[in-house]
Amino acid sequence: MHSFDFQPIGIIHSCYTEKFGIPRQSGLVTAAPVTLELYAPYDRPEALMELRGFSHVWVIFVFHQAMRDEWKPTVRPPRLGGNQRIGVFASRSPFRPNPIGLSAVMLEDIQCDNGHCQLRLRGGDFLDGTPVLDIKPYLPYADALPDACGGFAAQPPHNEMTVVFNELATAQCARWEQAQYPGLRSLIEQVLQADPRPAYRVGRKDKQSFGMRLYDLDVKWVVCGSRIEVTALSLKA
Amino acid sequence: MHSFDFQPIGIIHSCYTEKFGIPRQSGLVTAAPVTLELYAPYDRPEALMELRGFSHVWVIFVFHQAMRDEWKPTVRPPRLGGNQRIGVFASRSPFRPNPIGLSAVMLEDIQCDNGHCQLRLRGGDFLDGTPVLDIKPYLPYADALPDACGGFAAQPPHNEMTVVFNELATAQCARWEQAQYPGLRSLIEQVLQADPRPAYRVGRKDKQSFGMRLYDLDVKWVVCGSRIEVTALSLKA
Repeated sequence: MHSFDFQPIGIIHSCYTEKFGIPRQSGLVTAAPVTLELYAPYDRPEALMELRGFSHVWVIFVFHQAMRDEWKPTVRPPRLGGNQRIGVFASRSPFRPNPIGLSAVMLEDIQCDNGHCQLRLRGGDFLDGTPVLDIKPYLPYADALPDACGGFAAQPPHNEMTVVFNELATAQCARWEQAQYPGLRSLIEQVLQADPRPAYRVGRKDKQSFGMRLYDLDVKWVVCGSRIEVTALSLKA
Repeated sequence: MHSFDFQPIGIIHSCYTEKFGIPRQSGLVTAAPVTLELYAPYDRPEALMELRGFSHVWVIFVFHQAMRDEWKPTVRPPRLGGNQRIGVFASRSPFRPNPIGLSAVMLEDIQCDNGHCQLRLRGGDFLDGTPVLDIKPYLPYADALPDACGGFAAQPPHNEMTVVFNELATAQCARWEQAQYPGLRSLIEQVLQADPRPAYRVGRKDKQSFGMRLYDLDVKWVVCGSRIEVTALSLKA
């Protein structure tokens, strides 16, 4: 059977430097800044002419950390508690026969410098370093089907987590915001409100500790019921 | 630079057996029946479990008749009259650095026979024989952005063509509908209402003749102003 070979046209630079914590769909965490760096020769302003008129774009990318030699016909999506199996083609799981991802994201800006361009995006669910295969304009008349039936994922993930920062984390976050990462607190709040815990740990009554990496930072928090307390931010070792 | 190799998981069987006449986005011609035949080992019922609950799916495919060794940074979309150039990443043109296509289509049915499955779809804009790379469920909460700004393509293509069949074409169409292609007349009407003429021939005042292939049939019509008259249907030589 004929196979097709694709070269990336660019790469994603994202705050999500590890898989744990990445929102489970695009658009859920709008505070997440993403830069799509186009590779030469695709980084020319002409290739992006008239793209500014679109508020959103599709990014087609490779799930580069989900590439496997074997594929499985079923997956257990976190949305269903991680127990129920569904078909891989009924899921947006990264583990699929061709590990191709699809996300609609906000196009915030196009920056061109000396004839080399990059896109500033919002709301992405991309791992840092994600290879990009294509960018397409989002066409509401063809792509927006608000009346479509969404099967087991008809509604956005339910989310009632309350996120607070303790005193130490508040001070640390303020320092990192000023030094390097403006908007860091909103980003952490949005990411944790979406409750990135693995499904099997949701619903447990005991106090649980978690950590995730954002940029080059280790973010620590504890969960108690529906309350999340951020306890520390430190530079990743 | 690392490249990625993808094998098709299936193939499209469509009424569009040549490029001329294919609607310029998915969803515009709902009368177009499409079968997505999954290749083994992807044709197993497990891989499609729970997909029936979704009304629409994304099909990610290869523009197999638009593969070129070279790419151009700009294209001239029919929507802008075929004269104005825009960036290739601001377009849905098949001629792009990686010739990957993306269409949201209605999932009409899943048919499994002896453990081998295929999808019945509606509203596709696929050429017959299109290689399919992935199928994903359409998630309204993440994918439907009805308030997105659609740039130069904010509205569906304007379309005021009136389609009539002359006496000969009416009789021929009725015979083909009965023999092999139920719904053929609606299909031809919808395809021609979308006015598949190349942009440079739209707006001309003289009577113009056209032909396109649907299935294995040659469909002939003449255009006069905003009126299209279907004049003949015959088996393609």
